[in-house]
Formats: sequence, C-alpha cells, structure tokens
Amino acid sequence: MVNQVQRGDGTCQSCKSDSSGASNSGGESSKESSRCSTPVLDSDRSDRLRDKMRRRMESGDHWFSLEFFPPRTASGAVNLISRFDRMGSGGPLFIDITWHPAGDPGSDKETSSMMIASTAVNYCGLESILHLTCCNQTKEKITGYLAKAKHLGLKNIMALRGDPVGADWEEEEGGFNYATDLVKHIRSEFDDYFDICVAGYPTGHPEAESYEEDLRHLKEKVDAGADFVISQLFFRADTFLKFLDDCRQIGITCPILPGIFPIQGYQSLRQLVKLSKLEVPEEITKVIEPIKDNDAAIRNYGIQQAVEMCRVLLDSGKVPGLHFYTLNREVATMEVLRQLGLWIEDPRRPLPWAVSAHPKRKVEDVRPIFWASRPKSYIYRTQDWDEFPNGRWGNSSSPAFGELNDYYLFYLKSKSSKDALLKMWGEELMNEVSVFEVFTCYITAQPNRSGHKVMCLPWNDEPLASETNLLKDELEKVNRRGVLTINSQPNINGKPSTDPVVGWGPAGGYVFQKAYLEFFTSSENVTALLKVLKKYEPRVNYHIVNVHGRNLTNAPDLQPNAVTWGIFPGREIVQPTVVDPVSFMYWKDEAFALWIEQWAKLYEDESPSRMIIKYIHDNYFLVNLVDNDFPLENCLWQVIDDMFELLDAPPDSLNDGTVSE
Amino acid sequence: MVNQVQRGDGTCQSCKSDSSGASNSGGESSKESSRCSTPVLDSDRSDRLRDKMRRRMESGDHWFSLEFFPPRTASGAVNLISRFDRMGSGGPLFIDITWHPAGDPGSDKETSSMMIASTAVNYCGLESILHLTCCNQTKEKITGYLAKAKHLGLKNIMALRGDPVGADWEEEEGGFNYATDLVKHIRSEFDDYFDICVAGYPTGHPEAESYEEDLRHLKEKVDAGADFVISQLFFRADTFLKFLDDCRQIGITCPILPGIFPIQGYQSLRQLVKLSKLEVPEEITKVIEPIKDNDAAIRNYGIQQAVEMCRVLLDSGKVPGLHFYTLNREVATMEVLRQLGLWIEDPRRPLPWAVSAHPKRKVEDVRPIFWASRPKSYIYRTQDWDEFPNGRWGNSSSPAFGELNDYYLFYLKSKSSKDALLKMWGEELMNEVSVFEVFTCYITAQPNRSGHKVMCLPWNDEPLASETNLLKDELEKVNRRGVLTINSQPNINGKPSTDPVVGWGPAGGYVFQKAYLEFFTSSENVTALLKVLKKYEPRVNYHIVNVHGRNLTNAPDLQPNAVTWGIFPGREIVQPTVVDPVSFMYWKDEAFALWIEQWAKLYEDESPSRMIIKYIHDNYFLVNLVDNDFPLENCLWQVIDDMFELLDAPPDSLNDGTVSE
Repeated sequence: MVNQVQRGDGTCQSCKSDSSGASNSGGESSKESSRCSTPVLDSDRSDRLRDKMRRRMESGDHWFSLEFFPPRTASGAVNLISRFDRMGSGGPLFIDITWHPAGDPGSDKETSSMMIASTAVNYCGLESILHLTCCNQTKEKITGYLAKAKHLGLKNIMALRGDPVGADWEEEEGGFNYATDLVKHIRSEFDDYFDICVAGYPTGHPEAESYEEDLRHLKEKVDAGADFVISQLFFRADTFLKFLDDCRQIGITCPILPGIFPIQGYQSLRQLVKLSKLEVPEEITKVIEPIKDNDAAIRNYGIQQAVEMCRVLLDSGKVPGLHFYTLNREVATMEVLRQLGLWIEDPRRPLPWAVSAHPKRKVEDVRPIFWASRPKSYIYRTQDWDEFPNGRWGNSSSPAFGELNDYYLFYLKSKSSKDALLKMWGEELMNEVSVFEVFTCYITAQPNRSGHKVMCLPWNDEPLASETNLLKDELEKVNRRGVLTINSQPNINGKPSTDPVVGWGPAGGYVFQKAYLEFFTSSENVTALLKVLKKYEPRVNYHIVNVHGRNLTNAPDLQPNAVTWGIFPGREIVQPTVVDPVSFMYWKDEAFALWIEQWAKLYEDESPSRMIIKYIHDNYFLVNLVDNDFPLENCLWQVIDDMFELLDAPPDSLNDGTVSE
Repeated sequence: MVNQVQRGDGTCQSCKSDSSGASNSGGESSKESSRCSTPVLDSDRSDRLRDKMRRRMESGDHWFSLEFFPPRTASGAVNLISRFDRMGSGGPLFIDITWHPAGDPGSDKETSSMMIASTAVNYCGLESILHLTCCNQTKEKITGYLAKAKHLGLKNIMALRGDPVGADWEEEEGGFNYATDLVKHIRSEFDDYFDICVAGYPTGHPEAESYEEDLRHLKEKVDAGADFVISQLFFRADTFLKFLDDCRQIGITCPILPGIFPIQGYQSLRQLVKLSKLEVPEEITKVIEPIKDNDAAIRNYGIQQAVEMCRVLLDSGKVPGLHFYTLNREVATMEVLRQLGLWIEDPRRPLPWAVSAHPKRKVEDVRPIFWASRPKSYIYRTQDWDEFPNGRWGNSSSPAFGELNDYYLFYLKSKSSKDALLKMWGEELMNEVSVFEVFTCYITAQPNRSGHKVMCLPWNDEPLASETNLLKDELEKVNRRGVLTINSQPNINGKPSTDPVVGWGPAGGYVFQKAYLEFFTSSENVTALLKVLKKYEPRVNYHIVNVHGRNLTNAPDLQPNAVTWGIFPGREIVQPTVVDPVSFMYWKDEAFALWIEQWAKLYEDESPSRMIIKYIHDNYFLVNLVDNDFPLENCLWQVIDDMFELLDAPPDSLNDGTVSE
C-alpha cells in the first residue's frame, strides 16, 4: 500500500505504467483476465502474459485458458467470433489458436489462424496465443509470419515443430528441425517481444526415443527461451503430476499447464486416441464402452471425469491454471469451469465500452458514443491509427475513419439468417408505420404482428442493454410516433462505480452521464424540432444530418462534448465517451448504410418494401441530442413532446418566421 | 449558433481552435481581456491581439490599454510587477512597455524592458506589447531583440524610430532611418508572427515638415505592415477626432487608438509639454495656473478632464478603445476607467489558477495543486518545458522542475519589508508554539500578541482566499495544535460554475472538488497520523515527506489524483488540478526552503529564534491529504481529530504493533 517516490537526476517519469510494488486499492479484485470487454486494472493492459501469470501465482488465484482451431468456412468464422465473445465473458486468462499448414494459416483469409487470432485480440479483447509450426518452412517465411503477427497485435506464440509433410522427417536446408530451433529463432529475431510457450508430453512424445529423452528435449526448448509449457492431454491427474515433478527435477522452472480434454463422445474419443497415440485407462473404457451409443451420457461422464481430475490437480497446489482443448465447443468446457468455480462473469467493466487488446490501443480510453453498440466496427474503422485518444478526445489529431467495405462487413453481418430477419422486420412492409412498429417491438420486447420477437435491429445486434432498459417506456412512446431511436443513455448524477447497471471502472468511485438520444426521423419532424431546440439553447446540444451530408449543429466551436465520466480514488478523471461533431459525420455514413445493407436488401429490387426502406434512407435525418444539465431531470423527452405538440398544432405555428433547414 | 461540419478528404481535423463563425454560448460575456489570471474564452487564448480587437469592434465592446515604462531599480521592478497584477485585474486588453536605449532594454536585467514585458506575459498573464526603437541600431541587433522577444513569449511590437544619439540625425549604414524600415524588417524576418503597432501624432510629429507630410508618413508605416496605430497624447477630443478622419481620408483603415494622459500635477505637465512639444490649450491652463501649488486639486481636475474627453471620444462611435499613459501610477487611471465604466473586475476565472499568456502555454490546463498560492513560482520552474499538460497530468512526459535560484527569488520575495515581516511573524520566537500562533493569526485575521495582523506567510503572500475562508474555523483549530496548514480546499459536489466563491470556467456548468489539506507537522504527530490513516484506506490518499526526502504515500501506482474538475455544456471535462506524487517531491524542496529563506533569515545567525525555525525545517514533515469521497462530508478534520486523540491517549496506544516510519 505504501510506496516511496524516488527522485531521479532531475528528470522524473510519472511512474504511471510501473505497477511493481504497488498494490491494488482495497476492494478491487486482483483477478486478472482477458475477458471480452472487461480487461480489469490499468496495469493489466500493459502486463505481458507471463507477468499476469506470475501475479496470479503470487496471489494464488487460479486461471483457465481455452484452445480453439481455425474454422473451415466463412460462416464458421462468424460463429467462432461470437463464441469468443461468449466464452470470453467467463474470464479466461488467454486463448490460443492452432496452426495447420494445409489451411493457409498465415494468410489474410477470414478463416486463417492469423486472422482469427488477430480478431480475438483486436475485436474481442482477449489475450491470445498463435500457434506456429516450423517444419517444412524457411526461416524467412517464419520471420514473415512473426512480423505480421506482431503488426496485428499478437504478442504470444506457441512454438511447435508440427507434422512433417510425408511420413518421414527430412532435415530442411535453411529451415527448422525442432521446435527448439523455432524458439531460438524467435528470440534472435524479435528479442523479448513475444511470450513463447512450448508443448510438453506427460507420457513423452510418441516419436521420442524415451520419456527421459523427451524430458531433456523439453528442457532444451525451455532453455532456448520459452516462458511456459502447455501439456498434451492426459486421462489421470497423477500422470500429469508425476510429469510435473519430473520436469522440476531436471530443472524446468517455468509454469507448466495441464491440457484438459473433457470427453465429448465415443467417436471423438477414438479419433483423439488415434491422433495422440495415447492409451485410454481401463477405468475410463470400463464406463464408456457400455454407453458408447449414448452420447449424452458420455458427455455427462466426460464432464464428471474432467471435474474430478481438475480438482485433484488444483488441490495439489502445483497447478496454477487449467488449459482446455475445446474443439470449438462451448457446453462441456463451460460446465466443467462452472463446477470448478473458475467461470467468473464479472459484470464490472473497466470502461463502458468493449476494449481491444492490441498493444497499440493500450492507452485508449475515450471514444465517440456513436459506436456504443458496434464496437467491432469502431475498432475496424480505426485500425490504422498510430495513436489512440487518451484522456481527452480533442487531443486526437486526425480522426480519419476507414471506409466501410465488404471484408469488414463480413465480420459484422447480423448473427441472424435472412429468414430470421424477415420474420423480425417484416416479410412485407406496408408503409413507414410498419417500420415504426419494428422499432417499437424491439424496445418493448413484445412480439410483432406475425408473432415474432424482434431481437435485434440493423444498428443493434443484441437486445436492449440493461441501461437502456431504464428508458424503455419513454423510448416506446417516441418510437411509435416515428422517432426511431438507435442509441440512448440516461443522465446519471454520481452513482457509485459499482452500480450493477450503469457502473464501470475501479470500485469506490462515482460515475456520471449526460442524457443522450440518437434517432432517425422525417424531415417534417426535423423542421419542427429545430424550432423547438431554439428554446433549449444552450442546455441541449444537437447535431442533425441526412445521408447527403447536409447538417446542422450548435456544438460550440465544433468541440467534443463529454457525456460519460467517472471519478475514482487516487486517479485522474476518466472520460470514456464523447459526442463529437466531426466523428458524427463519419458515423452517419455507417448508420444510413445499414438501412440498405441489412434491411432493404432483404427484399427484392423494386419491391414496395424495399422502396419504403430506401425512402427512409434518402429522406430521413439522423439526430443526436445531449442534455448538458445532468443534475436535472432529462429534458430530451420534453423536447420530443414539444416537437410533436408543434406538429399536432394547427398549421400556422409551423410557418412562424423563417424555418431554418 | 449553428455550424456546419465540412468533411475533408478523409482526414478531418477536430475543429477545436477554429472559432470563426462560432458564437459564444448564451450567457457568456463576449468581453475579451488579458486580465491577470483571467483570460476568458478558450478562443481568446489562441487569438492574436488584432483578432481580439476585431471581435470587440464587431460586438461594440470598448476596451482600454495601459502603458508603463521600465523601472530603474530592482525594488521598482518588484513594485511594478505587483502593479501589473492589480491593474490587470480590471481587464485591460493589453499593456505596453516603453523602450529606452540608455536602460539596457534588451538585456536580462530585472529592470530591462524585455524582462519586464516578458514577466507581464508569462507571470501576470497579460497581453503585452514591447516597444522597440531602431535608430542607431544595426539590423542584426534588431533581429536579435525580436528573436529573443519571440522566445520569451512576446507577440506584439510597437515599432518606433526613437530619438537619435546626438542632436542631428545621421543615416545609419546597414541600419534603420525610419520606423517604416523597422516595420518592413519585422515583416521580412518574422512574417506575420508579431502584431505590430506604430505611433501616430494627432497634431503631426514635431520634426515633420507638415501635418500632411506626417500623415503620409503614417500611411507609409501602416502600409509597410502595421496592424494598428496608437496616438500621442492630446488635450482635446476634437483634436484626435479630426486626426482620425484625416487618416481615414488618406486610406488608413486599421484601428487608431487615442493615447490618454490624465494630468497628474503641475510640474509633470510642464515636463510633458517640454518633451512632446505640444501646446496646452488655453481652457486648461486657465484652470491649472491658479491651482498650480495644489497637486490634489490638479489631480482631480486631470481626472475630470480625461473623463469628459474620453466620453466624447467613445460617444463618437469611431473610437473602439482607449490607451492610457500611466507613468507607472495607478490611481488616476483607475479612477478615470471606473468613471467611464470600463474598469471591469470579473471575478469569473477560466481556470482556478493564474494563467500565463506565453503562446507555448496556450493549451496548458492542468497543474499540481501545490503551487496554488505560488503560481509565479510554478511558471518559473516550468519555463523550460516544451509542452504543457493538457487534459490529463499523466500525459506529461517528464515533470522536470527547474531548481530555485536567486534570480527567480527576486520576483518572488515577499512584498513586505523585513521590518513588517518581523512584526507579523515575531521579533522573537520563544518556542514552536510561537510559530503555531503566527499561523493561527494568519488564518483568523486576528492581531498577534504585539498587535499586528498577520497578512501573509512564507507560502502565501496574500491573506486567506475566500474559498479557504470557508474552512476558517476548522483550520484555526488544527493550527493551534501544530498542524500548520499552508494549502487546503473544501470538497464541492457539483456547484454551479458561476458560484462566486468556488466557481470557474464557462457558465452553465458544474464544478467539483475533493477535500484537500496540506500542512507541516512534527514527527511525533506523523507517527500517530500513520496509524490513523490505516483506518481511512482507501478513502484518504496521503503523501508525507521530510526535508531529507524520506517519504511515504499510498497513491496507487504513484498516479496523479484529480482534485478539481468541471463539466460544461458542449465541452470535454476540464480537470485543472491534481495531487501528483512525483511533483510533490519537487514542491517539498520549495516548501521547506521557504522556512529558511523567508523566515529564519529574518533573525541573526545562531539566535534562538533562528534555531527554532531551523528545528522545524529539519524535523517537521510536510503532509498532504485527499478525501476521495467528495459527495460525503470532508473526513480530513476527523482524521486530524483522531490523530490528536491518539496523541492525547495514554502512552500504550502509540506502541501497538509496528510503528512504520
């Protein structure tokens, strides 16, 4: 708790990123994780994986990690990314992605190991390890892969030999013979940039001359510069524990993590045994053979067996974390983790939006509010920035957002199929009011006319967030009348940072918000709105824009407006969200495009339904409103009421004076 | 009020510094000034003088400016700087400093024009013009002066010929003949960096061939690149108004400001007439001659005459501002300005601390709290920084504070004489309690034992600020018992930014503060305090240090802690004050040194009084405390109470467990 400040030779660095010796302020969990959207302490964002492990081992907090393989199809990739989000929410310390030369693993394809691992880091905020095999590769090729991984934000490599092409192994000229060579190469070319892990075999590698020979080989790999070891799967706790002791005996001191494989089915077990050349112990076959046609029963057994084995491993005191071979499936692994008490869904967020784990985004802590429901889009469109705003948005020198294109849209297509979307949004639209109804059903969670719940909208791929749910009634009212809301937040005047619905950041602090509303609406409404807004100056800031770029705002000097901020013990102010007039002009392209890309295109060209959506796209305006007076009751609903009152009034009142556009 | 955002070619600059077209948010004064400590709108800090003038002329807000001459003695310089602070508080648009070759005006002496003007800009936050004469100077010398002025933060030059050495004028080889040459030279060497003004003579320059010739000469000067004209003094409004019309007639379009000289005494008027070769009109001599021995009466008359003349000038609609020749005196000029309604003491501050007007400090908006009462010291010690913290303190890359040295101390000596200080702080100190009493009297504004009011302390050259006055009773209590407070602020939970005592920044916002207390106290007290502080973790952050550099803090990761912040309509959060553990280690040197430099040295070497102060310097600790829980009642007084309770308790309780040092 107590630190000394050392004066240097007159030049003192503010010791912000040096967390050695500093302890967490009371009440904060010391749990580090790379969970989706919620990396925790500031120091976690700058810690490397081996340091995170060291801290967990010091505090005795066990962790888990998850291994996945790259998908074969584009839709498989979309599903896998969603899986990362879901499984990431339980708090894995890291995940890893396997590497298979046949699948073009270093390419830019959406299905490549490189791209999948990069997406996990950048878009899902997960600490990720990229496997890399070196046999049949030249040194130049390997260096190229490593450089690309580094550029993409990957910081951890699992160095493997891999399976040689052809049955026998031939020495490659100018290439690698063993994983040890790869480890040496990584250290020699990239110094200490990457954390490196290597594979260990609790019963020895199938091709090793002997168990002892393989142990020596493992020591060689570690001495070449590996930071930790992940083991092949095994069926008995004592198999691994003996291996662990033997490693320690010959002087391997780094962390050694057990690889856990919950048995998921009879055929999959047979396949596994064939590939790994392991023997299934009798106590397991005895149970499985009788139920081999009952996959459900086998799955349950597999979960039990894994839980018991893991408990023994954790209780030994020598196993700091568990590594799961998921085979890209969720249920069994999550169940095992829950039963072990390792699956922790911490609702606490360090920031109100999903954080990326790319090292260059380490200090990023302020974003425009517009992408609140589309953080992956934001990350994509800002991926070429060299620096990211820290503290203030205004410091950002050039918010040049990348354009939208097909590749980006790939990862951002709706999770739902075209059929599902048509059911939710209407097989056939009659008029604009049909569209209003879709929005209203989304807000209220009530089924639409054809009995389907509207689970998403083009701008929101998830149902209403709990914070937005607070505003449900007012939102419903306005959507019914054609104020089509796509983003909003209530005003908050100093709620504790641990508040379960609106809290974020370290404990012991207070969070604040200005009320915000963003919606599409007709130009007739906008005409009335502009008159109403005059009365609310300067309390309400607005920005109104259409697809052609025509826009009006009363932002003073076009400056960004803080709409979310927090005060925490012993820290500077955090201001994670702003309404920025310049960024809004980039966001609007995306917001308008989504009408066409996700909705209009569900219908046939020239169909009435499509024309309705197109009409909205061409003629409606996108409006954002901020109520600056956060201690007072949110006045934006009154603004909308006043607008409707003006619209409902006899025609004269709309023609007073000049109607500004 | 309404702006359009233009998209560029994909790279958009956040239009933060471009204020063209943007209007002030309702309620904010459009008055620009360079008043001490209170430059107003953000845009003012980046506007050049000619732009500020243009804006005032557009809005019809008259301004005033003040001319001073450099002092001859060091103590004269100290007095002049104080005068700048006092006269700056009334809101001059700019001040100017005259240039006299005999006084080494371009040197580094404290009395030079260059240093005085630089101090006005950097330490008093005033927009300043440096006069510069060019006759008998080489071009190289002049360029050198201009470069030095630029480096020091000066942005405006009054270009003059000056009076030649010797009775007749000889053309200088490689030099300047006329002010026009100087104007051309400045533009040629420095482009548009400086705003340039030139002198005009309402009745023609004494050495000009004719009035018309002098007008043509003035036009030449302006065409060479001057931005505005300041006139020689005159005695009748119509003299100036005619001159103004004649200037417009021959095509001089820039602002032309009248120079006003309130008559202050009979001899001074005679002297002035001799130097300027002007004729005093009969209507004035008629009044003055009879009362020539009555300086008070002449002064009153001078004020009347100036007020009447200025009213005529302002009412003409052609005179945007008035320029006063103060002759370094305050009373008459301030009286004239008050009567004209131009003297505006705006208590509103853009930031809670005194802003410097050096262009490189334009974006500075966060400072450590420690120098709150010593802003000039802070400015001095950071004068070599290339960048200044904006938004967050943590962004500052290396807070390397310059050391204290004699030159700096010159401007920062107490305003009071040694005698006055001895009266306030004690001709003779009996013991430490004598010292406690001095602090207590300062806080309460009650006279000390010898009947003198304590108007200042070594760390506070002014009486208690009104904000600190809110805490007077609690401060008195703790000072009596040897908690010698030198800096404090109350907690504030969202008061309007226009609050007269604690408000700052644009109107319509809310200001916040965490409670803060900084004091010297004995090591015995500190031992008890450390035990007490354990109970208050993590709500209270502390940093405790002695003169030898021994220190303890519980600042998490040694990060800066926000203690003042504000939220304003349409803007990002402003966080102007932090408690920074790294800067505290620099501040402490200054704080401890002040015991010796300003107090101990009042007494003779080896005297008991001196030994007492030295004992305190060597053995006391400097403590700062922050109560992070700003919505709750300030707990720091309770912390101090608890400390005293522990000290007053029977001895056992102090020896529980380990007493950490």
